[in-house]
Amino acid sequence: IESRLPQVGTTIFTVMSALAQQHGAVNLGQGFPDFDCDPALVDAVAAAMREGHNQYPPMAGVPVLREAVADKIERLYGHRYDPGTEITITAGATQAILTTILALVHPGDEVIVLDPCYDSYEPNIVLAGARAVHVPLTARTFRPDFDAIRAAIGPRTRALLVNTPHNPSASVWTAGDMQQLAELLRGTDILVIADEVYEHMVFDGGQHESVSRHPALAERSVVVSSFGKTFHVTGWKVGYVAAPAALTAEFRKVHQFNVFTVNTPVQYGLARYLANPAPYLDLPAFYQRKRDLFRDGLARTRLTLLPSQGTYFQVVDYSAVSDQSEEAFCRRLTTEVGVAAIPLSAFYADGRDQRLARFCFAKRDETLASALERLARL
Amino acid sequence: IESRLPQVGTTIFTVMSALAQQHGAVNLGQGFPDFDCDPALVDAVAAAMREGHNQYPPMAGVPVLREAVADKIERLYGHRYDPGTEITITAGATQAILTTILALVHPGDEVIVLDPCYDSYEPNIVLAGARAVHVPLTARTFRPDFDAIRAAIGPRTRALLVNTPHNPSASVWTAGDMQQLAELLRGTDILVIADEVYEHMVFDGGQHESVSRHPALAERSVVVSSFGKTFHVTGWKVGYVAAPAALTAEFRKVHQFNVFTVNTPVQYGLARYLANPAPYLDLPAFYQRKRDLFRDGLARTRLTLLPSQGTYFQVVDYSAVSDQSEEAFCRRLTTEVGVAAIPLSAFYADGRDQRLARFCFAKRDETLASALERLARL
Ligand SMILES: CSCCC(=O)C(=O)O
Ligand SMILES: CSCCC(=O)C(=O)O
Repeated sequence: IESRLPQVGTTIFTVMSALAQQHGAVNLGQGFPDFDCDPALVDAVAAAMREGHNQYPPMAGVPVLREAVADKIERLYGHRYDPGTEITITAGATQAILTTILALVHPGDEVIVLDPCYDSYEPNIVLAGARAVHVPLTARTFRPDFDAIRAAIGPRTRALLVNTPHNPSASVWTAGDMQQLAELLRGTDILVIADEVYEHMVFDGGQHESVSRHPALAERSVVVSSFGKTFHVTGWKVGYVAAPAALTAEFRKVHQFNVFTVNTPVQYGLARYLANPAPYLDLPAFYQRKRDLFRDGLARTRLTLLPSQGTYFQVVDYSAVSDQSEEAFCRRLTTEVGVAAIPLSAFYADGRDQRLARFCFAKRDETLASALERLARL
Repeated sequence: IESRLPQVGTTIFTVMSALAQQHGAVNLGQGFPDFDCDPALVDAVAAAMREGHNQYPPMAGVPVLREAVADKIERLYGHRYDPGTEITITAGATQAILTTILALVHPGDEVIVLDPCYDSYEPNIVLAGARAVHVPLTARTFRPDFDAIRAAIGPRTRALLVNTPHNPSASVWTAGDMQQLAELLRGTDILVIADEVYEHMVFDGGQHESVSRHPALAERSVVVSSFGKTFHVTGWKVGYVAAPAALTAEFRKVHQFNVFTVNTPVQYGLARYLANPAPYLDLPAFYQRKRDLFRDGLARTRLTLLPSQGTYFQVVDYSAVSDQSEEAFCRRLTTEVGVAAIPLSAFYADGRDQRLARFCFAKRDETLASALERLARL
């Protein structure tokens, strides 16, 4: 069988989670909480099932949830999307991004991605018959390099993928970055695909720069977010897309022939739960406390800390400890030290090795303490 | 914006459901039950959420559910798929079919589809950069025409899409059909994509001919099925794919970058529920009773009945009542008579009009009675 994705194997997240399990390691690799969601959210979904919300919802999602999403975006970022024609509920952010690319990118087009980046972007682009053009973020600071982005733009450039807060680096874009991006794209018909799944995790009083805050970007952007990451239910597989009506119309053409629609009771449960904004408004403080606890512990190890401005990730430089490659080091960390991490090289098309590893701190305090105890032995 | 799917509008199911709602019509259009699922299934999913099964499951699905699916297929069709490498849980059958096509069909390939067929097939093929070759089933009897299929096969033929029990016609393939298909494909490398979502709805003591019953087909087939249709939860969006390991490996490469994985608590709930085979073993009798009730009523109207051997659909010929086009008739039936139906022409690439309409009888007896009362006035 000739493969459509010959270069693709099992994702690094699956590999490392399996290795962690096999060796009884504390799993700070794959990004997911090891604590549970608010029982009120479970109750809301269970109630929706009991009330009989178990058949096909409308293709774009249940209206009350789309309304709740539009309200949230307006409250936080000051831009009103029309829930009828501009918001679509998706089976998670990954499905949203593939669907966006299949809908808006044509065979032969180019899509600019900023490395390091999430591992689904390039296969998604390949499946659309297009080509990923990789532009690295700045070394160690992980900032957009607008000169490099400008140089990568060509006549076939159809879209640019932006991810902020950024996985894996934990950097966040500033308002100035967004203005520079808007400036750079002015007069082109390049679209922005904005992966904002960590939007509710920005620390130290910073604010999330959604592209929807910036009218010149919002009009050409597809914004992707995730309920799973915000509400500690990564396994529920539900997210959304917000985009101007013309882009949404194309998105939905593909969406209806991909998943058609998304789990009905989960949608009703989330709609009710979103009526109270506290859970996502409290999230920065919740994760900042964990970040600080984890960083305080790491500061007592021989690992060097990079900044963590957002997301639930922390990158460390381990070069004082080992000169192994990132992948070899992360495997050894998992099997011998007993803490799983993800090599940054897994997020680079060129696999560059910078002696950096990513930890996920969306874990119970005890889990973080136990990982820190092990890491102290390094 | 140049569309990837310029010919695609809102699906006929959405259009007719909206029209039905607007006019207070009994909705026998879109295929979904208007009754609820077994409360035990709801309880099983709620219990899984309460037990904390809310984070990412393994990419291919939770092992207990894959095991339950493999057991079911083996019990019913005598073929053992390896749950580890040959079964994948999907976000419904539509996602399974798009993913299969993106994974196994290359740009420039051809895929044979047998008209009338489900409306997602052709856009799915177009998104893979391939071409759908339409071969009609026999008129009125909706049987595969193997001479016509043979004539449609060419050097670029990559796959053939088979759907049995068949939506919209309610015909089912026989063992002889499957043998003829195996014969026809022998010595080629043409794959079979078998949409078997109505597998548990075959009437009058007939048996479902899964391609997995036929080794010469199973080895080249991707079998797609649906839990939503079987367990009266079309809105849960969960199904599965069974295919030989080499095909599954390619399927999963795309699956992991489409939805990545599927709602965890729903998977655990279904796994527990499947331990008892009664719900799907009882399904033929359950739906046959409804079919008979509906057909008895229709026999007293001026509509002519076609056979319904499987699925939860019933096709009627309305030519004794009207010479309107199918679409015009179905609209009028919805708005004036108060019963929504789907025109068969919506399932044909050439939109051919045969004065046929499809009703869904997955409805409460009262709903069917109320529809029949209205249809009697025709
Ligand atoms: C879909 S598994 C990966 C989860 C995640 O987003 C990450 O660890 O980066
Ligand atoms: C996904 S909506 C259509 C439901 C269905 O399978 C049908 O009515 O044919």
